[in-house]
Amino acid sequence: MKISELSRTSGVSLPTVKYYLREGLLPPGRPTGRNQAEYGDAHLRRLRLIRALLDVGNLSVAGVRQVLQAVDDAELPGHHLLGTAHEAIAGVPRADRGTPGWQAARAEAGRIVAGRGWRVHERAPALDQLADAIAALRELGQEDMLAMVDDYAEATERLARQEVALVLARGDRAAMVEGLVTGTVLGEAVLTALRRLAQEHTSAGLAGPG
Amino acid sequence: MKISELSRTSGVSLPTVKYYLREGLLPPGRPTGRNQAEYGDAHLRRLRLIRALLDVGNLSVAGVRQVLQAVDDAELPGHHLLGTAHEAIAGVPRADRGTPGWQAARAEAGRIVAGRGWRVHERAPALDQLADAIAALRELGQEDMLAMVDDYAEATERLARQEVALVLARGDRAAMVEGLVTGTVLGEAVLTALRRLAQEHTSAGLAGPG
Repeated sequence: MKISELSRTSGVSLPTVKYYLREGLLPPGRPTGRNQAEYGDAHLRRLRLIRALLDVGNLSVAGVRQVLQAVDDAELPGHHLLGTAHEAIAGVPRADRGTPGWQAARAEAGRIVAGRGWRVHERAPALDQLADAIAALRELGQEDMLAMVDDYAEATERLARQEVALVLARGDRAAMVEGLVTGTVLGEAVLTALRRLAQEHTSAGLAGPG
Repeated sequence: MKISELSRTSGVSLPTVKYYLREGLLPPGRPTGRNQAEYGDAHLRRLRLIRALLDVGNLSVAGVRQVLQAVDDAELPGHHLLGTAHEAIAGVPRADRGTPGWQAARAEAGRIVAGRGWRVHERAPALDQLADAIAALRELGQEDMLAMVDDYAEATERLARQEVALVLARGDRAAMVEGLVTGTVLGEAVLTALRRLAQEHTSAGLAGPG
């Protein structure tokens, strides 16, 4: 299909498609003339993945590029791809990393993970994010919220086993790789949306009608 | 304390503190002279809440203002405050809301919630976010991921009961109100960080050593 049809079918505006081409997020089409190129279903699929990562996953353009390079690297083990996806969704680090309060929170994050017997890379971005949240809760005097940590860990461990099994059941590497990325990013969006709805329901039940 | 001490104690730079004052996120201090004002522990506490919402919760400045106005509104029922917190963390809506594909996903989100017997506002922002994620998964041909929805819903429902009970146990309204906001925003940060770590651990176990 021509670029105009790619834009129409995907619902992504022509200037935006051209921007993704310039930024290297979308691979170039097969040249068919001086200023013309032919695009295929792989482009359409890639365009949808880009939109999902940007709009639902709230990744930056740089983060999307990082994830797509990992997706396209056939040599990269799936496990490393997961790390890349985690880095891309890690966001901007807090300015206070390195203060004694943050270091204490980081040590606490390490102990939580070790206590569960989880084997994770000592520089996993999620360890720093966990420390960010713990440091913020302590600063705000809301340590009582940390009573939830064990329940969160137990729930996520059980869910992770199912999530990873679901992705591995796909067999085909390309489908697995995309599943790792979308399972991480879109699965998180599904989980957090449901958490907010469950909280609203529970809080409404306790608050009574109205 | 003077504004310079407020800055030092909080670790927030002086220009940033002044910016929050101008933006109305931080209430003005008690005037003690022509260009001087006195700040108290409430300012320090508020400054920490602002940083937590911005840095860990990734809220926008407008989102923080919205949440703080709700926190400061003594007339607002706690349940409505939760809705405000959810709106502030909802982020930018996807451009495709309103397309037939998205409408179908939105209807599906409604059925999931109704199927659990959850009572939520029909315009709850989290319903749209759930629809965003469902629409993206369907577009990408990754509907198999939606097999997790029931497990996510069950886990979040169980956790929400504990979270809300924890906040209500505080007794004091101001502490409850802050707990609702931080429980929503920082609790989500803790949960998603643990989910990523659990995934890394599980995927490492299946991938074998290395």
